[in-house]
Amino acid sequence: MNRYAIIVAGGSGTRMGAEIPKQFLSLGNAPILMHTIKRFSGFSDKIHIIVVLPAEQIDRWKQLCSKYQFNIPHLIVPGGKTRFESVHNGLKSIQDNDKAVVAIHDGVRPFISKQLLMNAYTSAEQLGNAVVSVPLKDSIRKIEKGKNTAVDRSMHRIMQTPQAFLLSMITKAFSVEESPLFTDDAAVAEAAGAKINLIDGSYENIKITTPEDLALAEAILKKFEF
Amino acid sequence: MNRYAIIVAGGSGTRMGAEIPKQFLSLGNAPILMHTIKRFSGFSDKIHIIVVLPAEQIDRWKQLCSKYQFNIPHLIVPGGKTRFESVHNGLKSIQDNDKAVVAIHDGVRPFISKQLLMNAYTSAEQLGNAVVSVPLKDSIRKIEKGKNTAVDRSMHRIMQTPQAFLLSMITKAFSVEESPLFTDDAAVAEAAGAKINLIDGSYENIKITTPEDLALAEAILKKFEF
Repeated sequence: MNRYAIIVAGGSGTRMGAEIPKQFLSLGNAPILMHTIKRFSGFSDKIHIIVVLPAEQIDRWKQLCSKYQFNIPHLIVPGGKTRFESVHNGLKSIQDNDKAVVAIHDGVRPFISKQLLMNAYTSAEQLGNAVVSVPLKDSIRKIEKGKNTAVDRSMHRIMQTPQAFLLSMITKAFSVEESPLFTDDAAVAEAAGAKINLIDGSYENIKITTPEDLALAEAILKKFEF
Repeated sequence: MNRYAIIVAGGSGTRMGAEIPKQFLSLGNAPILMHTIKRFSGFSDKIHIIVVLPAEQIDRWKQLCSKYQFNIPHLIVPGGKTRFESVHNGLKSIQDNDKAVVAIHDGVRPFISKQLLMNAYTSAEQLGNAVVSVPLKDSIRKIEKGKNTAVDRSMHRIMQTPQAFLLSMITKAFSVEESPLFTDDAAVAEAAGAKINLIDGSYENIKITTPEDLALAEAILKKFEF
C-alpha cells in the first residue's frame, strides 16, 4: 500500500514571541521542521512526504533547505487559513487511485520514533486508521451550564500526531464544512463515520509551541535515539 | 482569616530515574522544594507552611536546610502511602478553631506567582474554595465500553495546584475512605458536596516529574519573576 505523510507546518510564530515561524526555529543543528521530516524518511524512504507551509514562507523554506543542504525529497503545498484547510490542501495534492494510507503530522512535533511510525502506518493499513495518544497525567474537570464536575481521567486520552488514515476515507471526510469541534483529524474522520483506533504515543512526542517547549525539546533531543 | 499552606512532597524519585527524590533535585541554585516554599513566604510571611515529606526523607531535608542556610520557618509532617494520606496527615496537623483557609500545593510545582497565590487565597476566603486550572491545549477522547469518542475540549480544564479551601470544609472532606477517583483535592471536596470554584493558572506552573521537566524548569526559572 502506498504511504504518504502530510506534515502540517502552519505556524506564524506569534505564540513563540519570535519573528521566525516556530517550525523554522533551530533545534540542535537544524530547523525543527527538518528534524520532523527526517523522522519519516529515516523510517522509510518510500514514504511520499508532503509539507504544508503558509504560502509566504515557502521561499524562505527553500532557502533554508539550500543553506542546510537538506536533501530529503518532499512536495511543498501552500496552507490555508486554518489547520483544517491546510490538511485539506495537503490531501487534495495527492492523486492516487490505489489503496494508500496517509499519516497527518504536526511539523513542530519532531520526536516520533521509528517504532511509532511503523505502528501508525501498519495499524492504519489493517484497521482503517490509527491515532497516537497518551494517558492524561493531570486531573480534569468538565464545565457545563456554568457548573464544573470532576471527570474520570482514566477514561480519557490526550491525542497526539501522527494520525494515520486510509487516503480515500480521510479525503472524503475532509470534503465537509469546517466545524469548531474539528480540533484534530480524528474528529474529522469520526464525524464521517469512522471508528477511531487509538495507539500508544509517548510523552516525549511533544508539540513545540512556546520558547519553554524549545528548551524542553533540546533536552529531549540529547537522549532521543536516532 | 488565618492562612495555611500544605506543600506535599511525597515523591520517591523513581519516575525521575534519579537516586535523589525529585523534590530535592537542584533547580538553579537550590532544591526544587525550597523554591516552592519561597513562593509562599515571598507572597506573605504570615502563611503557616506545612511540608509533608516521606518519613525516611525528613533527616535528609533538615540536612539540606542547614547546608543551604534555608531559614523560612515551616512545619514538617510525615507523609502517608498515597497523596491522599499525605494531604490528610497535613490537615490533621492543623489545630485552629478560627476561620482559616488552606492551600494544598505540589512540592515540585515551583512556578507560582504572587498574583496567583493572592487570587487563590482571597477567592477561597470569599467563595469557600479556589482551584487553579488551565484550558486543554490538546484534543482529548473519552473511552467507554470499548469505544472512544471525541469530546469538546473547550468544555474541559486541566487542574493544577494550589487548590485552596476553607480549613473546616476540607478537613471534613478528607475524613472519608480514599477513592480511585480522588485524583486531586478538588475531587475530594466535591465528593463532600462542595461546588468547585475554578481560577486561572498558568502553563508555566508545571509539575516537575521527569528529567525533561527539569530542563524545562531551568528554562522557565530564567524568565520567572521573583
